[in-house]
Amino acid sequence: MTRPSSRLAVWAPDGMGEVGPGDDLARLVGDLLEAEGLADGDVVVVTSKVVSKAEGRVVAAADREDAITAETVRVVATRVHAHGTLRIVENRLGLVMAAAGVDASNTPEGTVLLLPEDPDASARRLRAALADRFGVRLAVVVTDTAGRAWREGLTDIAIGAAGLRVLDDLRGGTDSHGRPLVVTVTAVADEVAAASELVRGKAGGRPVAVVRGLAAHVTDDDGPGARVLVRPAEQDMFREGSAEAYARGVADARADTDRAPSA
Amino acid sequence: MTRPSSRLAVWAPDGMGEVGPGDDLARLVGDLLEAEGLADGDVVVVTSKVVSKAEGRVVAAADREDAITAETVRVVATRVHAHGTLRIVENRLGLVMAAAGVDASNTPEGTVLLLPEDPDASARRLRAALADRFGVRLAVVVTDTAGRAWREGLTDIAIGAAGLRVLDDLRGGTDSHGRPLVVTVTAVADEVAAASELVRGKAGGRPVAVVRGLAAHVTDDDGPGARVLVRPAEQDMFREGSAEAYARGVADARADTDRAPSA
Repeated sequence: MTRPSSRLAVWAPDGMGEVGPGDDLARLVGDLLEAEGLADGDVVVVTSKVVSKAEGRVVAAADREDAITAETVRVVATRVHAHGTLRIVENRLGLVMAAAGVDASNTPEGTVLLLPEDPDASARRLRAALADRFGVRLAVVVTDTAGRAWREGLTDIAIGAAGLRVLDDLRGGTDSHGRPLVVTVTAVADEVAAASELVRGKAGGRPVAVVRGLAAHVTDDDGPGARVLVRPAEQDMFREGSAEAYARGVADARADTDRAPSA
Repeated sequence: MTRPSSRLAVWAPDGMGEVGPGDDLARLVGDLLEAEGLADGDVVVVTSKVVSKAEGRVVAAADREDAITAETVRVVATRVHAHGTLRIVENRLGLVMAAAGVDASNTPEGTVLLLPEDPDASARRLRAALADRFGVRLAVVVTDTAGRAWREGLTDIAIGAAGLRVLDDLRGGTDSHGRPLVVTVTAVADEVAAASELVRGKAGGRPVAVVRGLAAHVTDDDGPGARVLVRPAEQDMFREGSAEAYARGVADARADTDRAPSA
């Protein structure tokens, strides 16, 4: 349990150019942050979009739907709407997202952008390079934008992380009446991603942000990464859409009846 | 569509005392913020806990489970665990939360704290009083802490708001290739709530935060409030837990078979 700083500064510099396959992202991010510099305990937040572009994850795709299918490990829920079918799926990273995280905006016509192969590894590489360049202890978070169950609108979440306490486990702490805080585990990395979105915006051009004031959450080692934010299947009470689970129940019951007809 | 600031400051002053029923929350919050003052476009973020306390929402409850039942409009999912049953429910505010938002931490023994009766109204009252006192245009967000489907850890969300563009609709904007941004509606108020949690922490004592730098999202009128963040039932693909929906499917199919046995 850590007591965080009571003051944050969050900024997103203008001036990052287009990023392409093979570009040295750490150098580009470092150049962008050079003017203000980095301080010990800073968290550098980078969108998965530029990480993917630097890692050459732009692929030709005549059909975005085919690209989504290729990235899908498991369909969670689908809904037919006026322009096609919305698919909420689990992708290779374990993330439950609309369209598997396949992005067709801000990419050239006829191409789509896939998520980084291993965003935690991308975060570790960026962290090492930036720590080396600026000579400070820092953390890196890689973000993507995702919808939520039950709530309207999208927020940014952490899909990669290095050097940040992604989950702050307050269990073992006490409240102001001295009773144990029993169930509070804060998703710090997702809150950092959300805060950074407020300064980055969505129209492009500001894919990098710095969050200063969270040194208490910055760790010496890289840590387990954002992967630990993915809820294990056996603890996920919303593993299927309600309609899909219901339909499966109906089908199973009918199959059962067919197998064992009443005498 | 608004282009947000590229720099935020977020802080949470120490020094808020205990809040009790009938306390003038606007005065207490104003006193707390007096030293640094408020600027035009600031967002004042207050936890639902102190709003509830000031509004006298502490109720005697021999049994927390009974209090949860009373606040529940609809059970979404349940799971039996070592210490009892976890209930994910929809409460009177339309919020899907564990334990209906009933809080038994940081309250005197034998009592629980209910959520504010109408957090959007609470936000509007606070906004009017603070705008009057400080003579600036500001927004107010009332937060609570909630779990998510699919992801570990809790984040703060907005359950009340006044004067903030809670959803920033980017549809109609264009990406850097000039193509329309089709599906992006950002849940600004939830991102503000998340950012504020990073400076407030969970151990109590800092229930108020200020987010400066979002003037582009602060509106002249109070707006629709955080209620618009609640996804309407007919668009909610996760209205029931997977196990609950599956069981309902099985039961419905069996009832159907019982009504119409094969000849």
